[in-house]
Amino acid sequence: MFVSLEGMDNVGKTTICGILARRLSPDYVVSVVSDPPAVAPWNDLRTTLLGDRRIDNSSRAMIFLAARIDAYFRIIKPLLRRKHGIILADRFSDSWLAYQSVKNRKLFKNLKIAVRFFTSISSSCVDAGMLIVPNKTFLITADVRATTKRGRRKKRTVFDSIPFQREVQGVYLRLAMRSKKRFEIIDSRDRNVEELGNIIEARIRSLMRSR
Amino acid sequence: MFVSLEGMDNVGKTTICGILARRLSPDYVVSVVSDPPAVAPWNDLRTTLLGDRRIDNSSRAMIFLAARIDAYFRIIKPLLRRKHGIILADRFSDSWLAYQSVKNRKLFKNLKIAVRFFTSISSSCVDAGMLIVPNKTFLITADVRATTKRGRRKKRTVFDSIPFQREVQGVYLRLAMRSKKRFEIIDSRDRNVEELGNIIEARIRSLMRSR
Repeated sequence: MFVSLEGMDNVGKTTICGILARRLSPDYVVSVVSDPPAVAPWNDLRTTLLGDRRIDNSSRAMIFLAARIDAYFRIIKPLLRRKHGIILADRFSDSWLAYQSVKNRKLFKNLKIAVRFFTSISSSCVDAGMLIVPNKTFLITADVRATTKRGRRKKRTVFDSIPFQREVQGVYLRLAMRSKKRFEIIDSRDRNVEELGNIIEARIRSLMRSR
Repeated sequence: MFVSLEGMDNVGKTTICGILARRLSPDYVVSVVSDPPAVAPWNDLRTTLLGDRRIDNSSRAMIFLAARIDAYFRIIKPLLRRKHGIILADRFSDSWLAYQSVKNRKLFKNLKIAVRFFTSISSSCVDAGMLIVPNKTFLITADVRATTKRGRRKKRTVFDSIPFQREVQGVYLRLAMRSKKRFEIIDSRDRNVEELGNIIEARIRSLMRSR
């Protein structure tokens, strides 16, 4: 089963992925895949991908798409062949749609049309077998002020700022509305990462039993 | 005016671009843009783009697209604002369509569907203002055996081999059939680069006069 965790920066996705991997590992073959993928040359290109402000935003969008396609062919696709396997993606295509739509919205009449553009590119890649849609996506929502504050401790990327993150969460919620069966929204307010891990672990176990 | 030179590897595009730039410069502001663009970080990424066989082909296709979009925003778009300017692109989007369709054809039922996929991605980017269609494209055709032989002297890339280059030329010709007004096919057989330069120079001068 291919599960993705989505949400704004600093909602706790990576920590929760770690918790889930630890708890589910005794019963299933669990793999965590990160974004950009932790394989060469993408790991070496991290600075270019996230930080090179010389590159135009729309070009950067395509580099992220390239990284995700490569991760699919080289990491996810081989893992999908295993029985009783769980692949936990710490971000996947929905991240691309949400972040790139907001980041490149100026090219389009409005954000809705930007989302439509990136969705159409992503869907074409899925149809061509270059990408896959997760079986289940947990969207972790949060109070934008709280997560942005938490992020201050980390290194700044081109994706920072409260209004930006708020719009990203808005697009995520719109994507969730459109794919109600795939998405589950988990509200992180008043819950710590352990509690969020509990909720998602229970859901994954239930989904694995019903397969 | 935005002019692209297209054709298989080693048909003489770069040499002809140089000849054209030299001859047209006294009368016009001429700029030559290469592919991948000669700006950071793309120049540093040349090895990754062309030679890294670890990256999946379809992922590499998207890196080339990213490079071309970046070249458009950072190099071509500013140049287009100049009056009486001629931009000579040593390869542009048609290269992407031809090479990537052939390189990734296994993902699709046949080459025609591969061409349709890449054309649709490229057109979406044009519609979104991320790419531009050249005003005129000169497709230099050649005998595949001759150009491949000539290429042996250069460093090998992932795009080598006679059957591959033959298919690339086939796609180019198909693209030319579809956009008859934009494309002009220049047969390079029994003509040296100077003669090819003469023909294209005359055509560009005539097009500039009629603008």
